[in-house]
Amino acid sequence: MTSPRIITLTTDFGLRDAYVAVMKAVILEIIPDVTIIDISHQVSPQNVPQAAYLLQTAYRYFPPDAVHVAVVDPGVGTERKPVAVSTSHGVFVGPDNGVLSAVLTDQDILETADGMLRGGEAVELTNERYRRHPVSRTFHGRDIFAPAAAHIAGGMRLSELGHPLVRLHGGESTMPRREGNQVRGAIIHVDRFGNAVSNVPADMVPESPVFEVSGHTVDGISSSYQEAQLVAILGSTGLVEIAVRNGSAADRLGVAVGDPLLVRSAD
Amino acid sequence: MTSPRIITLTTDFGLRDAYVAVMKAVILEIIPDVTIIDISHQVSPQNVPQAAYLLQTAYRYFPPDAVHVAVVDPGVGTERKPVAVSTSHGVFVGPDNGVLSAVLTDQDILETADGMLRGGEAVELTNERYRRHPVSRTFHGRDIFAPAAAHIAGGMRLSELGHPLVRLHGGESTMPRREGNQVRGAIIHVDRFGNAVSNVPADMVPESPVFEVSGHTVDGISSSYQEAQLVAILGSTGLVEIAVRNGSAADRLGVAVGDPLLVRSAD
Amino acid sequence: MTSPRIITLTTDFGLRDAYVAVMKAVILEIIPDVTIIDISHQVSPQNVPQAAYLLQTAYRYFPPDAVHVAVVDPGVGTERKPVAVSTSHGVFVGPDNGVLSAVLTDQDILETADGMLRGGEAVELTNERYRRHPVSRTFHGRDIFAPAAAHIAGGMRLSELGHPLVRLHGGESTMPRREGNQVRGAIIHVDRFGNAVSNVPADMVPESPVFEVSGHTVDGISSSYQEAQLVAILGSTGLVEIAVRNGSAADRLGVAVGDPLLVRSAD
Repeated sequence: MTSPRIITLTTDFGLRDAYVAVMKAVILEIIPDVTIIDISHQVSPQNVPQAAYLLQTAYRYFPPDAVHVAVVDPGVGTERKPVAVSTSHGVFVGPDNGVLSAVLTDQDILETADGMLRGGEAVELTNERYRRHPVSRTFHGRDIFAPAAAHIAGGMRLSELGHPLVRLHGGESTMPRREGNQVRGAIIHVDRFGNAVSNVPADMVPESPVFEVSGHTVDGISSSYQEAQLVAILGSTGLVEIAVRNGSAADRLGVAVGDPLLVRSAD
Repeated sequence: MTSPRIITLTTDFGLRDAYVAVMKAVILEIIPDVTIIDISHQVSPQNVPQAAYLLQTAYRYFPPDAVHVAVVDPGVGTERKPVAVSTSHGVFVGPDNGVLSAVLTDQDILETADGMLRGGEAVELTNERYRRHPVSRTFHGRDIFAPAAAHIAGGMRLSELGHPLVRLHGGESTMPRREGNQVRGAIIHVDRFGNAVSNVPADMVPESPVFEVSGHTVDGISSSYQEAQLVAILGSTGLVEIAVRNGSAADRLGVAVGDPLLVRSAD
Repeated sequence: MTSPRIITLTTDFGLRDAYVAVMKAVILEIIPDVTIIDISHQVSPQNVPQAAYLLQTAYRYFPPDAVHVAVVDPGVGTERKPVAVSTSHGVFVGPDNGVLSAVLTDQDILETADGMLRGGEAVELTNERYRRHPVSRTFHGRDIFAPAAAHIAGGMRLSELGHPLVRLHGGESTMPRREGNQVRGAIIHVDRFGNAVSNVPADMVPESPVFEVSGHTVDGISSSYQEAQLVAILGSTGLVEIAVRNGSAADRLGVAVGDPLLVRSAD
C-alpha cells in the first residue's frame, strides 16, 4: 500500500462559513483517500502576502509529493490566471497573484524581479474538463483549485490540466515598493507571540537600516529577540520582524496586519 | 477497496472546548476508517436556523452516501426527538428541532407547513443498543447522534436504529412568523463578506417588498449585489440576504446574527 | 486490516499560524496512515492547567492505544523534561510541567503530592535518534513531541525513546496553593456555556466552603446548576466550577481565565 497523498489548504475563508468544507468535499469526491491538512484558514481577508508567508513557513515539512492549495484571491473573476507549479518540494496550486511567490522564490524557481520561472513545471489551469461547471465568478477554490489539486494528488500530469507557463505575473505584486530613498513595506502577519512579520526581505534592507512602524523607530537589525526592548530581526523565512523582548509587539506597539513598515538608511 | 464513507459535523460547540473531539472519538471507536469533515462548529449558540443554513450550503457537494450530523440543540434533554432521515443525497442525523428542515425542504422531502415527510426514510433514534449509556441530559451529540451516525456510516439500516416517522415537528419552528400584514424574520448568518443572510424564504416575500433591518429600509429585491448601495437579494439557497455594494453589511449597518428582519408590502 | 491509530493534539498554538500543520506534517512523514484529531488549539497562551483539564475531559473517549500529545510549554528550552507516559488508557506525550498531571492522577497513576508514578511506564524523551535536528529552542512540539508520538503510534516501545522515569516534577506546579487558612486557586477554563472551571479539586475544599471570585462570594457547594442564581459545583472532572443559573458566569460576573478563586471555610 502506498501512503495516501497529502493536500494542504491555506485560505482566508475562516471557519464559520462552510466554504472550507465544500472545498474538501470537492477534493474527496475526486480522490477519496487523500489526507487533507489545514495550514490556516484565518488569513486576513484578501491578504496575499500573509498567505504566502504562512505557506512558506509550513510547506517544507510536508513530503515532496504533497499538493498545496492557496486561495487568497482578491482578483477572483478577473483575468489573473489560475496556476499549478510543480517543484522538487511539492506542487502548488492557486491564483497567479503572488500567493505562491514566496515558496517559489524560496526554492530558487521564481525570479521575482520579472516573474520568470527558472525551474519547476508550471501550467495555467485552462482545461475545462477538470473544472466544476458552471465556474462561479466568486468561488474558484471550489470550481478550479480544489479539482485541480485533487487530480494532481491522484497522479495527473500538470500538462493535462492546462497550458505551460514560463512566467508568473504575481511575483512582484506583493513586494514592498521603493519610494525615493526608502522602502515601503507592510506588516503581513502577527504570530501568536505577538511578533509582527513584514513583507520586507533581507535584500531590500540597507546597510544601516532604520525602521518605522506605528509611530515607533527601530535602529538596526538585531541578531536575537533579546538584544533590546524593541528589535528588528530577520526571521527564519528571511523577512524583517518587529519584536518586543519578552512581550507582544502587537500589544505593546499597537501594530496590526496591514500597517506600513518604512525602511531607510541611517546614513 | 471501497472509499471510506464521510461523516460531516455541524455544531455550535466552538473549537475551544473538547466537545467536538469527543464526538469524533465516539465515531472513530465505532467506525475507525471513516473520514470526518467539519462543516462548522462556530454556529452561534443555539441558533438552529444558522446551522440549517450552513448545512444546506454544503451538503450537495458531498457524496450521496455521506452522513451529516447537525447538533444545535437548545431543547436537549426535553421531549424533542432525535432523528435520522435518509435521502437520495445523504443521511441526516440530529434533533427534530428544525436543524434538518432546510436540507429536507431543499430536496422536496419535507412539507414545512405541516411537517409531513413526502419521501426519504425517517426514524426516531430510540434503540437503546446504539446509544452511549448513561445518556447524559446535556450532550446527546456524544451519546445519541455520534453513535447513530457512525453506525449508519458503517452500513446499518435506519430501521435498526429506531421507530419510523412520517412527520417532523421542527419544520415550522425556525421559520419567520406572519404578524398582521408583515413577516417577522431574523438574520441567521453573517458570511465572511459581511452579507447578512435571513431566514425569510422567497415564498414569504410579497410582490413589492420593503425590508427593515437595524433601522435601515430596503426597497425591493435586487438581482445583483451591485445594483445599489444597499440591496436585498435572494441568495443561492433562496433566502433573503441584505448586502452592501463592495462592502460589509455587518460592518456598515451594524447587523448581527439574531437581529430581526421585517418584511412588508410597499402597497 | 488493523485500524489506523489515533494521535490527538492539545496546544496553545491557535489556528492562525501554521504551527499545528507543521506538527501534523512531521507526524505524517513518520506514520502516514495515522488519524490525527484536534482536541483544542485554543488553550490560553501558556495555560498549563487549562490544557490539562481539556485533555482530561476528552481522553477517555479515545481507544486505549491512542497517543495524546499536549504542548503547552512555557518552559520550552529550559530544563523541564520532555516525557512520554504509557497507561492502560492511552499514551501521553508532552513536557513534564503539569500538563499531563490531571490525566495521570485521574488514572491513579500519579501521586501529585510528590510526583511519584505508581504505575504506567514513563520515559524522558532523550534519544536523539527520534528527534528532528537541530532541535529548536522554541518549538519542541515539532522537534521532539510530534516525532515521539508518531513513533509510538507506529509501534515503538517507550524504552527505545529514552530513559525511564519514576517521578514527574510537574505534578504540583499547576495546583492551587494553600495560604494560611485559605486556598488560592485560579479559573483555568471558561466553557461554551460560560461556566468557569477552576483548578481547585474536591479534596482541597473544606466542609463549609466559601468561594470568592471576581468580587462575588458563593457559599457552599451545590448539587446542580439550578440550585441558586450563582452556584459552585463539582464538575464531571472533580474540579470546582462557578456557574450562573440559565446563563453565563463569564458574562454575568466578568470572570475570565486566569482570575483567582479563593476558598476558605465559613466556620
